[in-house]
This record gives sequence, structure tokens and C-alpha cells, in this order.
Amino acid sequence: MSRRYSVILGNLGNTKDRFCGGYKDNPDTAAMLRQAAGIPHVQGIELVGTWDITPDNAKQMKGLLGDLGKVCTSIIPDLFADKRFWKGSYSSADPAVRRYAIDYTRRLCDVALSINCPLLNIWPGQDGYDYLLTADYDSARSWFRDGLIEIAQAYPQLRFALEYKPKEPRCRSYLATMADTLLMCLETGCANVGVCIDTGHSYVAQESVGEAIVLARRAGGGYPDTAGRLFHMHFNDNHGHWDDDMIVGSVHSSTYVETLYWLDRCGYAGWLSMDQYPYREDAVGAISESILWLRQFDDIVQRHRARIDALLTAGDAVATSRFLRSALGPSAGMPQ
Amino acid sequence: MSRRYSVILGNLGNTKDRFCGGYKDNPDTAAMLRQAAGIPHVQGIELVGTWDITPDNAKQMKGLLGDLGKVCTSIIPDLFADKRFWKGSYSSADPAVRRYAIDYTRRLCDVALSINCPLLNIWPGQDGYDYLLTADYDSARSWFRDGLIEIAQAYPQLRFALEYKPKEPRCRSYLATMADTLLMCLETGCANVGVCIDTGHSYVAQESVGEAIVLARRAGGGYPDTAGRLFHMHFNDNHGHWDDDMIVGSVHSSTYVETLYWLDRCGYAGWLSMDQYPYREDAVGAISESILWLRQFDDIVQRHRARIDALLTAGDAVATSRFLRSALGPSAGMPQ
Amino acid sequence: MSRRYSVILGNLGNTKDRFCGGYKDNPDTAAMLRQAAGIPHVQGIELVGTWDITPDNAKQMKGLLGDLGKVCTSIIPDLFADKRFWKGSYSSADPAVRRYAIDYTRRLCDVALSINCPLLNIWPGQDGYDYLLTADYDSARSWFRDGLIEIAQAYPQLRFALEYKPKEPRCRSYLATMADTLLMCLETGCANVGVCIDTGHSYVAQESVGEAIVLARRAGGGYPDTAGRLFHMHFNDNHGHWDDDMIVGSVHSSTYVETLYWLDRCGYAGWLSMDQYPYREDAVGAISESILWLRQFDDIVQRHRARIDALLTAGDAVATSRFLRSALGPSAGMPQ
Amino acid sequence: MSRRYSVILGNLGNTKDRFCGGYKDNPDTAAMLRQAAGIPHVQGIELVGTWDITPDNAKQMKGLLGDLGKVCTSIIPDLFADKRFWKGSYSSADPAVRRYAIDYTRRLCDVALSINCPLLNIWPGQDGYDYLLTADYDSARSWFRDGLIEIAQAYPQLRFALEYKPKEPRCRSYLATMADTLLMCLETGCANVGVCIDTGHSYVAQESVGEAIVLARRAGGGYPDTAGRLFHMHFNDNHGHWDDDMIVGSVHSSTYVETLYWLDRCGYAGWLSMDQYPYREDAVGAISESILWLRQFDDIVQRHRARIDALLTAGDAVATSRFLRSALGPSAGMPQ
Repeated sequence: MSRRYSVILGNLGNTKDRFCGGYKDNPDTAAMLRQAAGIPHVQGIELVGTWDITPDNAKQMKGLLGDLGKVCTSIIPDLFADKRFWKGSYSSADPAVRRYAIDYTRRLCDVALSINCPLLNIWPGQDGYDYLLTADYDSARSWFRDGLIEIAQAYPQLRFALEYKPKEPRCRSYLATMADTLLMCLETGCANVGVCIDTGHSYVAQESVGEAIVLARRAGGGYPDTAGRLFHMHFNDNHGHWDDDMIVGSVHSSTYVETLYWLDRCGYAGWLSMDQYPYREDAVGAISESILWLRQFDDIVQRHRARIDALLTAGDAVATSRFLRSALGPSAGMPQ
Repeated sequence: MSRRYSVILGNLGNTKDRFCGGYKDNPDTAAMLRQAAGIPHVQGIELVGTWDITPDNAKQMKGLLGDLGKVCTSIIPDLFADKRFWKGSYSSADPAVRRYAIDYTRRLCDVALSINCPLLNIWPGQDGYDYLLTADYDSARSWFRDGLIEIAQAYPQLRFALEYKPKEPRCRSYLATMADTLLMCLETGCANVGVCIDTGHSYVAQESVGEAIVLARRAGGGYPDTAGRLFHMHFNDNHGHWDDDMIVGSVHSSTYVETLYWLDRCGYAGWLSMDQYPYREDAVGAISESILWLRQFDDIVQRHRARIDALLTAGDAVATSRFLRSALGPSAGMPQ
Repeated sequence: MSRRYSVILGNLGNTKDRFCGGYKDNPDTAAMLRQAAGIPHVQGIELVGTWDITPDNAKQMKGLLGDLGKVCTSIIPDLFADKRFWKGSYSSADPAVRRYAIDYTRRLCDVALSINCPLLNIWPGQDGYDYLLTADYDSARSWFRDGLIEIAQAYPQLRFALEYKPKEPRCRSYLATMADTLLMCLETGCANVGVCIDTGHSYVAQESVGEAIVLARRAGGGYPDTAGRLFHMHFNDNHGHWDDDMIVGSVHSSTYVETLYWLDRCGYAGWLSMDQYPYREDAVGAISESILWLRQFDDIVQRHRARIDALLTAGDAVATSRFLRSALGPSAGMPQ
Repeated sequence: MSRRYSVILGNLGNTKDRFCGGYKDNPDTAAMLRQAAGIPHVQGIELVGTWDITPDNAKQMKGLLGDLGKVCTSIIPDLFADKRFWKGSYSSADPAVRRYAIDYTRRLCDVALSINCPLLNIWPGQDGYDYLLTADYDSARSWFRDGLIEIAQAYPQLRFALEYKPKEPRCRSYLATMADTLLMCLETGCANVGVCIDTGHSYVAQESVGEAIVLARRAGGGYPDTAGRLFHMHFNDNHGHWDDDMIVGSVHSSTYVETLYWLDRCGYAGWLSMDQYPYREDAVGAISESILWLRQFDDIVQRHRARIDALLTAGDAVATSRFLRSALGPSAGMPQ
């Protein structure tokens, strides 16, 4: 299948951590947009609510995107950087905060419709807990579900992709893995609620991304261009224990081959969006690299699909290794 | 609620690892049974199929248990130590192996009925994969589901608890977390298929056990004495990264308080079964300790339930710490 | 031994992460100092360079501390929040940055002398790397060592405690574990260069803190009041995979008993300093809790030292469990 | 540099785990030897004491190796599979066990001399602990050191490589990381005591192997053909959390490039020995794959050494990614 590459605009912005308030300078949105649009193969842009797009600047952003020939892939409500959500958004124990989170999201749904953006990517980073015996998991999950239902029912034309992550900023997140997020989707009873896989989050969850894709498809529902409940994809890499948000391919390789294979096999025709956090790297360079790595991995999938089919059936790790070694090798074809 | 304690008989047997073929001597089943029955507070015994119980010795085992005044809590089919299942049981790519796994399980279902054992605890340790690109996750999951359906439909009087574990002996297991195991339960459409939490497996999966219990209850179904789909509980402790199968309370403490709280709140009235692997420890001593720790933690829950309710609502980690420090402290009541 | 409790002043300040720029308000230094001084059992304060103390305000801080009857336990040079050090301080590939880091530290050494602070706690958070094949480990380590030598030789009256941590903010730190930090101490050849254990960092490194203390003592050197090269201690807790900087005792318990035991046995008579990051908690409450937990654990050590000696010799996990269960139990002494 | 490849003979034998007593059949030693010798590029064989080689069969093994044109790279005393060592070998609290471990090792030293094997690879798998507060870390470490000193001084013509590993079979090992193992080497004061890196153990320890090599070289000592105290190398791969002992390159790639680079740069001219545990794989195939992967990675190092030098100096992750993508890519040279 042909791939559509996208990038989260915020990837091009300043970076910081809990120690250092900013490693880079803060470019303005228009400048970042031009930079993002200039990255080879990028066709779509994800915008973070409040940061990049608001009801006030929606028309202007639509114009800017149109001028650059790009589309808005998704809007990501800022449910994580606003201090108000420090103890949760849709699952906050404070009903006023839950109300605000829902209303805020609804405003961004209106924005999405106004700029022809088909999807809201929901990353509820603050919805979770840090200490045991400080949260009512049952109530929290009900509140979260109810918030989603209100939003999803109010905007049936939009899709909502829930982005799971085991931890950070909370020690434990309510939406931690593909499977528990699918259970949440099912609980809502809303056909337009699905999942976003962030590959790095999936590694931290000790999932195989390919298997997570299969779970999403098996959960049923979805659209002709989704893998069942898998509505969206974010790409990055990490060292396996934390969401380092690194360049694709820096640490792992075979997992990307497998991921792209299963995306195809499960019928995913959506966006491949880059979601990195280039703390100390040139952002344009880092994102460009990820896309080029993915294209390189995808080339393997496209050229060897039948062979991969056969490897999965054979279940022989030696044969799989031989294939990968040849496919990933600089000296493919060299006699050994 | 009153607790019912149980123990897996094999915990009293020999121990080994991939390096050393046996650290202890192999006691015979009757001797182990007497030892297990002598552990204070133990009312039930879990038996591993083939190892402890077979169609041939079922009558005799029933007699032995009756003589000791204990009941058989569950039968655990040996789907993990039989070399035949080295690449999976119900999910094996080999249909003959799948057939065998199902038929073998059915024979143990007959045994269960014959000894009034209400539950089969299914730990499909070999069902998973080691290397990426060596397994067809989708087919494997369908095969697994189909096997479960056949068994569960054939024995509607029995309950089937799926015990998940992220890894070991395979690098990745198909039933890895509470949530994906619940999805499997739902896929079967069988009301008598549920989940067993092994606390140590849950820690390796980076779950909070209390939250896993809530997920199981929310998935619906179940029986009056289960927490929704949570049918069974195995207890042990570990260092957080691997299934060390240690004495309860050796590493963690607050998590057990939380677990027992949520078991009650979600209506679980089933067994608390000890599942350890005392490599180099006296087995009777190690199991006894786990039960006594659990009773100690349970005492906190029973005496402070209303306070715990309030702590979960308050969401104040300092208040929770103050409570735990007082409850877990040797000097509770001492002026500070 | 009598314990001396201390707190890092910055624990009382604002908290943030890479998503949210601030969860709390920023109190001023004098206000934080009064708060810290009011925490029961606190006798000492650690000050972060630039944030809390500078050549300009040293005299004033000395006065404030004196008025409150507290001493300055250590000064922590800010080698981690200053954007200038984004790719390292003493180990930066840029000689101008290395020069600046050394000179900056020397200025704080002068400050330390002027306020009778005996120790600089060096946490070189930015000294490490994120991606493989982007760092010359050998040169970096030499530069780091040379910087330390210059500083340590220039200030023989001061002690320098190197605080190791496996990762964060860098994906990998140069000083990652007790053992590699001891190798660095030995490389410097300076008797006044030692180590600070942060208990949470040690958990992330998969160390047992007690064993790390033993390594430090065995490395030799040190002072009458240190455990060999162990010059300083920071306390907190976490879930075992990341530096969550939580309240002591929230997750683990037996490890603190073991830690306090080995501190005594190895002759450590230094400070027990609280180093937390109470993202969403009341800081005074969170720090107070940690100290009270430590006192509770210490009470066990002081009352049962001979029994612990015997347990370490016996090597019987069941006996150890029995001891801990009784010592940590709310119902110590209750018949079972 | 030219590489010398070796294999541990036991890799070709039966495999098992704590559940299943054997996944394969047990070939005899001579058959395994012929198989190992037939693996392309293999020049050396590592033998496990007791399993493969004893004082009784040493002459015969020497003959067999000679006939096959291979050399014995190392002898690995079986300090891990013998039940006698279940609570440690050189560090056992039982002096009779320590005595036996030393004497047993000495017998293998004699064997080594008799077959011109220059090195004993010491993997003290059982030397560690499982539960906190069950071990006297200080005494254990002294006993371990004293055992090493006796052996190393008695056999100055032999080299002793200590193979560290954070855990398994014990929950915590005394020799857990490169750095603490170097401290042990230094404590012995014996020039012929060094370290063996097992790449998978190093990943579990969250080390970068390249950095571990640098630490070993910086610790000084060693021989003209070693990287300081780094005397030996074992290769395999894993998923990053456990010693899965997989085929090289199955999960990671860039780390092998970095490792081979630093081996050269630090002057290591020793063996690259395959140490896998092919639970369910064809052993010859799995080992062959590892060697071919290493040769492929080595080809990158040899052809691009100057460029790698420059990348390490530049510290630019985007440039490093660009290099790796081109070097590891199937379509190197293809216009992008």
C-alpha cells in the first residue's frame, strides 16, 4: 500500500525536561509549519490544541496548510500540559475539571470539522496515578468512559483515537496498553472511538507492535481504511524501558518490518505520523531520518511480502534471521 | 469477607532451572499432600494435571483429599512442561498438537467433575513466541480461541480461568496482561471463561493488581462469587522485573493491601491460592509465610476499610503514606 | 547510631516535567527555607547552586540558616538545569563548556567554605549520551576525571560526593552505578572524591542499596564518618523502573531496613538527606513522611541488630520473612 | 583486525527450563564437537567443565579438537549446574563448598594447561542472593575474592575471565556489571584476573557494551591482546530485559557495530565466542546466523572506521542515524 507520512508539529518546537526549562529556542507556529512541510515525503501535519490551533486561529491555520499543500491529520487536545489537568482530565475526581476537559475537547472538535480534519488523537497523559491507594480505579474509568461517550456521540463525523502509554507523566496511566484501551473503546459502545499506537509507548508496554495491531483488528469495528479499532499510528524508537522518543531505527529494526507488514495485512491505510522529542537534535533532521528509515523498512516489506508470509507460517527463527540479515544487510547479495 | 487459602501442590516439589536439573529431592504426591494440608489456614489444594492427577489416580486423590479434609480448588492442565507443547498448545501451528491439547484438557475436565473440582486453571505457558517475524499472531489467537470455545462449551458446569503472564518460558506470551486476556474471554463468547491473576505476573506486566481486578469486574459476566471475569487468584512476590515467585511481602507491601481491598470491593469470594517456586527455600515454610503475610495485610483492610475508601477518594499521597506507615509500622500508636 | 536528617531545599519548590511547565507555584528561597526547617527532625539543608545559593547571597543564606539553627549539608552545583550543559558538563566535548563547568564548581567550593559546608554533591545529570555511536566514551571519561581532579585538588578541605544515576535526563549516564562511580573515584586518585547513593537511582540500577554500601566501603579510603567512599545519602522510593522520586516506604520496605543496617555496619555516620520530587503532593508533607518512615525502619534496625546479623549468616529466606513480617506488622506479637 | 570466532559447545546440546526438563535430545559430546567444528568461520571451542571435559577425558578431547583443526578457547567450570553450588560457589557461606569450588576449578586449570587452553571463563551463576536480608554481602565478596586469589596465583600461566550477569539463576548476582567485576579484579591484585562480556548480560545490565569495553581498558592491566581487563567476549542478543540468549542481530543492530568498533579501538584481539541458548531452534543454524550477522556488522566497522571516529567526535544523532541507515540498509546507495 502507499504510505502517507505525517508529523506532529510540536516535534519541531522547544524541548525541555523536569530539570531544564528549555534546550532550544521556541520557533513560532508558522515557522515550524514551513519547516515541517519541507520534510521530504510529509503530506500531513498533526496539531496540538491550544499550542498550535484554537478556535481563534483555525481559519488562518487552514489557510497556511492549504498554501503549503498539506492536510491536518489530527488534532491533539492538550490534556497533558495544562496545569488544570494535573490530576487527570476526563477521569479527574473533580467534576468541574472533567466538565472543562470535555468542553475543551468539544471546542477542538468544532475546529477539526472547520478545517476538514477527520480525527482527534486523545493522549490523556495525566489520567492515571502515582501512588497506590490514592485512586478509585473504578470511578476513574467510568468517568473517563462517560466523557468519551459524550464527545464521540456529539461528533459522529469525527474519529477519536486513544493513545495509550504505560507511564509518564504519571507513574501509571489508565490507558496503558493496546488491550486495556480496546476494552475502553468497547465500553463506550461508540464506533468512532479507536486507538492510536505510538510505537515507543508500545515498546515500553513490552508489546510487539505487530501483535498490538492484530488485537486492534480482532476487536472489530472500524472503518474501511483502519485496522479494526486501530485508527492512527505514531512512530519513534527507544531503548526499551522509557519513552525516549528517538529517531526510528536508532535502536530497533526488525520490529518496524513486522509492524509495517501487519499494518498492511490488517488493512490499515491511515497515516504514519512521526512523534519524536528531539531533546538535543535538529528536529527537521531527526524527523526526516525517521521517515527515511520507515521507507527503507517498508521497501523490505513490499518486496518480500510473500516470503514474510511464509516465515510466519514456518515459525523457524533461523530462517527469519537469515531473511532479516539479508534484507537489513549492507552486503545483501554478497556470497557468504 | 472470610478468606479461603489454597496452595498449588507442585510448590512443595522439586525445583530446577535451565542450568540445574534439580535443587531438591522429589517427594511423592501423597507426602506433598500431607505437607500442604498441614500448613495453617490451608483449606484447598490445586493439582497439576499429569503431575499430580490423572484419570487413573483421580479416585485415589479424591480419597486422600477427603481424608485430609481439603478440597481440590483447581486443576491446572500441564500445558507447559510437556515437550510436545514446546511451540504452543491451543495456539500451536500444528493442528495435531492443538487437537492433543484440547483432548488432554477435556480428560482433565472429566477428572475435575469426578472429584468435584469446579475450576480449571489454564496457564498456557508455551503459547507465545520468542523471535519477531516467526509467528502469525492472528491465526494463533484464533486457534487459541477456538480451542477454548470447544472446551468451555463441552463443560458448562466448569469454570476456566486463564492465567496470563507477559513472558517465560516464551519471550512473549499471547496471554500477557489482564486486558488482553479479557479480550480473549470476550472473543470466546463463553460465560465460563475468565481470568486468574497471579500477582507476580501482574507485577512483571507493570500492572497494579487492584486495577487489574477492576478491569475484570468491568468486563462483566462472571458468577456471584467472582469479580466479574476474575475467577481465581495466585499469590507470590517478586523484584518487579521477572516472575521470581517469592514469598508474599518479601519485596512489596502496599500492593497487597490494595489488592485485598479491591477483591472485596469487586465481590471476589474465591480462593487465595499460593503459587510460589521456592528454589532454595523450605517449601512449607515459604508458603506458610505467604499466608501469614496475607492475613496480616488483610487485617489492615478489614479494620480500615472506610479509611481506605476515603483515601481513594481524597487522592492525597501524603495521607495515604501516613495511613500505611501507621498500619504497617511495628510501632503503631507510638508518639512521633 | 544517631541519625542526622537533611532535605534538599529544591524539593519544596515548583515541579514540572517535559509536558507541563509547572504544577505548583514558585515559593521564594527564604520561604522554602523556613518550611524545610520546620519539618520535624530536619537538622540540615542541601542547597542547589545558582538556584538557592550563589557567591552573592552566600552570606545572607548563612545568616538565614544560622537563625533557623540548621546547617548546610551540601551544595549541589547546577550541572543539570543550565542549558549550557545540555550535552555534558565536565565531560562535554566542548572544552569551553568543560572550563565553565569547572570554574562554576570552584566558585561554589568557595561558597561552601565560606558557609562551613563540608561537601559538594555532584550530580552530573547531563553527562552521558542518548544515541549509540554519538559519544567517545573514552575521551568523555578522561575529561570528566580531569575536571574532578582539578576541583578536588584545589579544595582538599572539601569532600566531593558523585551522585550516580543510570539515566534521565540522558538515556544513559556516565556515572550510572555505584561500581562505575567508584572506578571514577579511583581514577582521580583524590581521597576527597567519593559517592552519594540516591536510593531511587540505585533501585533503577537494579542494585540492592545495602550491597552498594558494601562496595563503597570495600573500595577503601574515606573518612572516619563515611563508609569508605560513601560520603552522602539521598532517600526516596520508586516503582523500580524510573526515578519517580516518591515518599520513602511507598513501594518498598525491607530494602530500607537493609540499607540502614549496612550504613551502620560500614561505619556511615553522615547525613540521611531527603531527595524527592513531589510533583502533585504537598512537599512538606511528603518529606515529613519520608523521615518518619525512615525512623520507623531505623527503629527496627536498632532494636534487632543482633537478629539481623544472625539472619544474614543463616541465609534462610523463611526466617528472614518471619522476622520482617513481625517487625513490619501492625499486629506484632499477636498470636497466629 | 582479523576476528576469531568460537562457540560454546553446550550451545549445541539439549535445552530446558524450570518447567520443561528438555526440549531436545541430548547429543553426545563428540557429535556436538563435529557439528560445532562444521560451522563456517568457527576456529575455537569453549568447553564446560564436567559436561564436556574432565581430567579423565582431557587427552581424548585434545585429540578430537586437534583432528578437527580447532583449539580450545576456554574452559568454563561448572559452578552453576551442580546442585552443590545452589547457594554459591566461591562465595558460599559454607567453607566446605568454597573449598570444593576452588579445588574443582584447580583441577580444570590443570586440564586447561594439559590441552593448551589459555583461559578459564568463570561464570559464577549461583553466587548471589534472592531475598534481601539473607546474605552478608561483605563476607561473600571477601570469600569470592580469596577464592579467586588462590586460583589465580596458583596458575599464573592461565587467564581467568569473570563473566558478569545481573541475575539468573539468582535474583541478584554478586558479579552483576562490568564495573563491579572490575572492582573485584582490582581487589584480587592478580594481573591474570579479568572480565568476560556476554553481550546479552550487558544489555540486561542496561550497559552499552562499547562503554563497558572502555571501562575495562581504563581499569588497566591486561595483555597485549586484551582490552585492558577485558579478556573474553560472548555474543548473543535479547529483548533487553532478560538473558534470552538469542541469535545476534535478532533484536538489536547498532549496538553490535559500536561494540566491534570499541573492541578494535581498545586493542582487543581475543575471541568472539557465541553463547546462545537455542531453546527451540536448530543450534547449528542459530550459531551460524550469529557469526554471519557479526561478520556483516564487522564489515561496516572495517569499511567505515574513520567515519565512525568522526561521528563519535561530532555527537550528532542525526548524522549517526544517516550513517547507520545507509550502512544497515538493503538499498544502500539508492537515491532518496
